[in-house]
Amino acid sequence: MSAASPFDFSPLLPAGLPAPAARWTGLAKYSFVGGNNDPDQVPVDGLIEAVNAVLRREGKALATYGLASGPQGYRPLREFLTAKLKRDAGITCGADDIMIVSGSLQALDLVNQTLLARGDTVLVEQETYQGALTRLTRLGVNAVGIPLDDQGMRMDALAATLADHKRRGITPKYIYTIPTVQNPTGSILSQTRRAEMLKLSREYGVPIFEDDCYADLIWKGERPPAIYAMSQHGGVIHIGSFSKSIAPALRVGFIVAPWEMMSRMLALKTDAGSGALEQMVLAEYCAPHFASHVPKLTRGLRAKLDTLMEALNEQFGTAAEFEAPEGGIFLWVKLPDNVDTLKLYQAALAAGVSINPGPEWSTDKAYAGSRLRLCFASPSHEQIREGVAVLAEVCRKEFGVPERIANVEKRASS
Amino acid sequence: MSAASPFDFSPLLPAGLPAPAARWTGLAKYSFVGGNNDPDQVPVDGLIEAVNAVLRREGKALATYGLASGPQGYRPLREFLTAKLKRDAGITCGADDIMIVSGSLQALDLVNQTLLARGDTVLVEQETYQGALTRLTRLGVNAVGIPLDDQGMRMDALAATLADHKRRGITPKYIYTIPTVQNPTGSILSQTRRAEMLKLSREYGVPIFEDDCYADLIWKGERPPAIYAMSQHGGVIHIGSFSKSIAPALRVGFIVAPWEMMSRMLALKTDAGSGALEQMVLAEYCAPHFASHVPKLTRGLRAKLDTLMEALNEQFGTAAEFEAPEGGIFLWVKLPDNVDTLKLYQAALAAGVSINPGPEWSTDKAYAGSRLRLCFASPSHEQIREGVAVLAEVCRKEFGVPERIANVEKRASS
Repeated sequence: MSAASPFDFSPLLPAGLPAPAARWTGLAKYSFVGGNNDPDQVPVDGLIEAVNAVLRREGKALATYGLASGPQGYRPLREFLTAKLKRDAGITCGADDIMIVSGSLQALDLVNQTLLARGDTVLVEQETYQGALTRLTRLGVNAVGIPLDDQGMRMDALAATLADHKRRGITPKYIYTIPTVQNPTGSILSQTRRAEMLKLSREYGVPIFEDDCYADLIWKGERPPAIYAMSQHGGVIHIGSFSKSIAPALRVGFIVAPWEMMSRMLALKTDAGSGALEQMVLAEYCAPHFASHVPKLTRGLRAKLDTLMEALNEQFGTAAEFEAPEGGIFLWVKLPDNVDTLKLYQAALAAGVSINPGPEWSTDKAYAGSRLRLCFASPSHEQIREGVAVLAEVCRKEFGVPERIANVEKRASS
Repeated sequence: MSAASPFDFSPLLPAGLPAPAARWTGLAKYSFVGGNNDPDQVPVDGLIEAVNAVLRREGKALATYGLASGPQGYRPLREFLTAKLKRDAGITCGADDIMIVSGSLQALDLVNQTLLARGDTVLVEQETYQGALTRLTRLGVNAVGIPLDDQGMRMDALAATLADHKRRGITPKYIYTIPTVQNPTGSILSQTRRAEMLKLSREYGVPIFEDDCYADLIWKGERPPAIYAMSQHGGVIHIGSFSKSIAPALRVGFIVAPWEMMSRMLALKTDAGSGALEQMVLAEYCAPHFASHVPKLTRGLRAKLDTLMEALNEQFGTAAEFEAPEGGIFLWVKLPDNVDTLKLYQAALAAGVSINPGPEWSTDKAYAGSRLRLCFASPSHEQIREGVAVLAEVCRKEFGVPERIANVEKRASS
């Protein structure tokens, strides 16, 4: 080894590491991926007002890890959540039932670390959050998909899967569900199905892991009670986030859980607390403004969804099938069977359009192969229209759909 | 199972979980633990000014994960660090060599996840950071302690240990060192020893993991170049933090590493970015103010150290042995051999005084059994004096030292 040769780390790397990251090259010109929100809807003035007030009053507390609120997070934020969860989700809990975390992704990690070991099985919605699926894969956990319909997870399928696993001597570690604005399909699970899920959970001794991180963004502003709220037996872990309602770059989420789980997760949260300034500014802003901010935000998102659906109808015609979601920031789209959205993803990216290919959001790669997720909160109305036009052009070139003629016909008839 | 009985998670928990956390009961009246800082030294006005400026200019960027700076963190903060690391630590690096993380604890996790597997061996300073030791224990990694003297890690001992492991066919995965204000002993490793460590690192193919998180807090304001800066071959991972220089409740640290390691750690950092507001306010505040803030902070810390050492001399007399550290926020104290600081910790806590018992900060539990770490940044001068008096009283009651008579004599003669 010469003096100039660089140190080689490769012999030291353990087996099973994910592939190294590529260097970041910026966001796509037309970005339809990620949970990014509408820049014009960040309540900048309100956040400035809040941060001034809270730092002037409590800034010195930043000298202490956890702000002397302890490891569960800034107490005023937990108190805001107590009131908000009661009002919106019907959850009755105290500040001590809540742990603030660094985004709901840390919540996923803590729940997984507390319950899962390599070789375990969990039940998930067949189409579900990519970040949950990749985590399970890395942990060596078997994620069994339960089919959805337009009402969310199918309870007949859940019952059959639980019975089947019981016959095989397998107790799944949890049922992971995004019941309120399902990701990526956008449905809201009815109260009846929630009750059925709870009954099955109790019957089979399998807890429910309820991810409610999109639940604030519902067009009509009302939602069924959280599964956590409906439970008579406590076997539910509930998580949520401020990423969708206020701003994703603030990394603040939360977990509501029985103390038996909370005490285990606290022992695993060895990060010396989540960012205090972000917790402080959220508490200060949200207590007076959250309830009025969210409806304004959702009206804007709903308008962008309309633009996206119009653009898809215009550019793809009948080749793009979708159902309008009941809230959220994404649309789940079916293209003709011959379209491979993993390939479309690559070709579109080269043309400046980023999309989420369906197979990354499903346990059934074949079913999802011609599907994709389009996030509409971040791009402007103009970018949505232009981006969908570019995507249609790329798709036509790669897969022959949408046919140009169909499009023109549709335009002429509209 | 009756309808009223609560869901029982215990059959679902995997083996090897840490013990559940106890409910938080608040900070001790006299708290000499943790990396907490002086509340009066948090630059509240400067932070308020910074957060107003940066939110007014860039607040809308909070709608985008990572603020469009990419997964390595807010670019202006990385640019500030590039200049700061050059000036203070002699490190020549660009913004792309730096990753912002959620406190240096996340840096520990990322480095560990990238390099370690169960059964591996790493070399650490015999007395070292508790958070590093507990992580290694949980990972099932063998931490071999290298003895320290008043100059830091002993290079003769490091050379012997590396040679011994090579004979046994073991390549340690890294040499973890806190060379600049060692935690808990407070020494600064000389430039000569740094060069020796690099030579040994290269010779044995074992990288150096340099934790510089206390390096800003040096009484005389100057320090040897970072080991990272001195390396000719690149086999060094360098981490640091804003917790000690600005405020610990802001969870912002950083990693400087070769791309071979950086690309692996980026693939493992699946938290969708560290808190953006904290990164923004730090960048905005630090660029103009860091260089003048830190000397003011260290003068105040040095004065608290003097109070602590005076109080120990007065209350413990010759029973408390220590050397004044060259910087930082803690003092490493030796009590008479018959004192068991794990027991002292319990008794002191009951009396309202929290301390770090030595065995939690050492790989040699017997050697550290009568030692303890006292953090002095957070309590006031008055709390330091009162807390040390209470600690001496508890120690006398439990272990018969310090003897009352010695104390009185010392007081009379001073």
